[in-house]
Amino acid sequence: MYPETFEGFAAHSAEEWNKPKRHEFTPKPFGDRDIDVKIVACGVCGSDVHTVTGGWGNKNWPIIPGHEIIGEAVRVGPKVTSVKVGDRVGVGAQIFSCMECPTCKEGNETYCPDWVDTYGGFYPDGTMTMGGYSSHIRAHEHYTFPIPDALDTNLTAPMLCAGLTAYSPLVRNGAGPGKKIGIVGIGGIGHFGILFSKALGAETWAISRTDSKKADSLAMGADGFLATADKDWTAGHKMTFDMILCTASGSDGFDLAPYLSLLRVHGKFIAVGLPEEEGWKVSPQALLKNGCLIGSSHLGNREEMLAMLQLAADKGVKSWVETIPISEEGVGKALTRLHSNDVKYRFTLTDYNKQFE
Amino acid sequence: MYPETFEGFAAHSAEEWNKPKRHEFTPKPFGDRDIDVKIVACGVCGSDVHTVTGGWGNKNWPIIPGHEIIGEAVRVGPKVTSVKVGDRVGVGAQIFSCMECPTCKEGNETYCPDWVDTYGGFYPDGTMTMGGYSSHIRAHEHYTFPIPDALDTNLTAPMLCAGLTAYSPLVRNGAGPGKKIGIVGIGGIGHFGILFSKALGAETWAISRTDSKKADSLAMGADGFLATADKDWTAGHKMTFDMILCTASGSDGFDLAPYLSLLRVHGKFIAVGLPEEEGWKVSPQALLKNGCLIGSSHLGNREEMLAMLQLAADKGVKSWVETIPISEEGVGKALTRLHSNDVKYRFTLTDYNKQFE
Repeated sequence: MYPETFEGFAAHSAEEWNKPKRHEFTPKPFGDRDIDVKIVACGVCGSDVHTVTGGWGNKNWPIIPGHEIIGEAVRVGPKVTSVKVGDRVGVGAQIFSCMECPTCKEGNETYCPDWVDTYGGFYPDGTMTMGGYSSHIRAHEHYTFPIPDALDTNLTAPMLCAGLTAYSPLVRNGAGPGKKIGIVGIGGIGHFGILFSKALGAETWAISRTDSKKADSLAMGADGFLATADKDWTAGHKMTFDMILCTASGSDGFDLAPYLSLLRVHGKFIAVGLPEEEGWKVSPQALLKNGCLIGSSHLGNREEMLAMLQLAADKGVKSWVETIPISEEGVGKALTRLHSNDVKYRFTLTDYNKQFE
Repeated sequence: MYPETFEGFAAHSAEEWNKPKRHEFTPKPFGDRDIDVKIVACGVCGSDVHTVTGGWGNKNWPIIPGHEIIGEAVRVGPKVTSVKVGDRVGVGAQIFSCMECPTCKEGNETYCPDWVDTYGGFYPDGTMTMGGYSSHIRAHEHYTFPIPDALDTNLTAPMLCAGLTAYSPLVRNGAGPGKKIGIVGIGGIGHFGILFSKALGAETWAISRTDSKKADSLAMGADGFLATADKDWTAGHKMTFDMILCTASGSDGFDLAPYLSLLRVHGKFIAVGLPEEEGWKVSPQALLKNGCLIGSSHLGNREEMLAMLQLAADKGVKSWVETIPISEEGVGKALTRLHSNDVKYRFTLTDYNKQFE
């Protein structure tokens, strides 16, 4: 029981990935800049599914997923300056980094070689991290984010990973007024791509295989929609996009060339969907016609997280969320439905107080 | 005979790619902004070999290669303002573009959809372009470049394509003081990569398969040398390079991952070597660790050409050139030796006045 131990819903093997069971664990020792968060809600992320099914190679069982966490600060270390007991705070997909290397110091802590995942990672002392399908989480204040009052907890939780994953590459690549941005793949991350690209003021086009998500995309604010199953779907758009954010997670049979042909000179194709398969085949010739660039992006830094939350508060960004009360059954249902893409467009686990007291 | 016809050394088929024969041809009609150049020297480029062997799919025979041209302006159209009769000028790998599209107007004429190659291309009127293994070339003044007096003709000719191909991506990606640049592949373009990266003030590392080009690379000014055949060749350099310019033209069996691991966060791997094979296999995961980007680059614009020539003049940049007198035999020898990589590091065809009078 808190404060000695925390409790959550863990996958105990890849075979039983959607049959989570209650699990008690001991968190890392409390540090001077740590905060204990009593969790109130947690988004369910595609990463959770890839992890519990073993698709990304997880070997550490049992594991408690969840890295889109919102809760109440219930204990605050003596050197914490950014959070007080009672504050509403969030924790995302990264829980720690060395904070001393050049990469950390330049605001690229998400690329720190010693970074620690919010769940399934290991602190320097050997403690394995456990995620937000739990009663509490202990986090360094650098990775604990005050939530602006204007934001709704259940709608905001999924922003802590999926939202930031879309927001950071958008701002780092100049999304804003006068720019034309494409969002490929209208799922959990893609829907945030549309919402935040619009909130940043860019002309935003949704790009999906068929028209099935056209109405939703336009309702999210997209200025236009392209279905790649249509004949000549790039016609009239070649060399007009400043950036394409690709959130599609499949790569097999994914021909990059037509997407790249949409980009202006030195435009960027940034992929944040992480396939379990091997990757793309890319020829320099396909990159040559417009000198475009292909890259990836990993989450976002603290400054971007705070800016994203403030933008969401200022512009009234509302994610599309279905809530599911947390329990063994509820977690199993959320993972199962997410695994079969039966979600529009994000789940948030709620009602923590009924399970953890 | 000039001015009605020009004459040069043409490949008449892929089978006889290294047995060029004299060939007379009629240039496009002379325009108000055109310049006729009496050629004095021309570099021999890898593109010439890929074209005459049919490796890049050339179907237009006979063809006269050569796009690293220096000569004397002998006729100048009435609307030309940048060149006078008698001036020493250069012509590179691009001879025309629409000059009206947004891409041209933003200084990206090398990516104009209607761009015309210096040889083997077609003007809007249907005239096929012929390259610099010829007595003369006719070019629009936008694609005709005054050569600074301080530069030597034979050493400068190869800069018109190979030099610019290395220079443009270096400057577009910030090569300069405080930056660490890698040059992969120490051939014709790679040697310019070292020369210009150093001239721009960047810390410059040559990256090659074995040590065989180490001494040359250091003599060109490289600050360091990495041999990829060495065990753990990336050790001590991970996440330290701002940009890697890849001039290697092979792709089969070319594993990008170790190269990408050298890059700082959002560092760029820019490939200008164009393989005849299919391309690379790239997984987003390989891009994710440092959020790096893979791209390509096509020549450079007029402004960059003029700046490169001035930099070469100011800093005394000297390319490594072996001269070969132009003739059927000389052209055949240059193409044959380049095809078997028997060149250090660039050929310039000379003695035009002995063949064309």
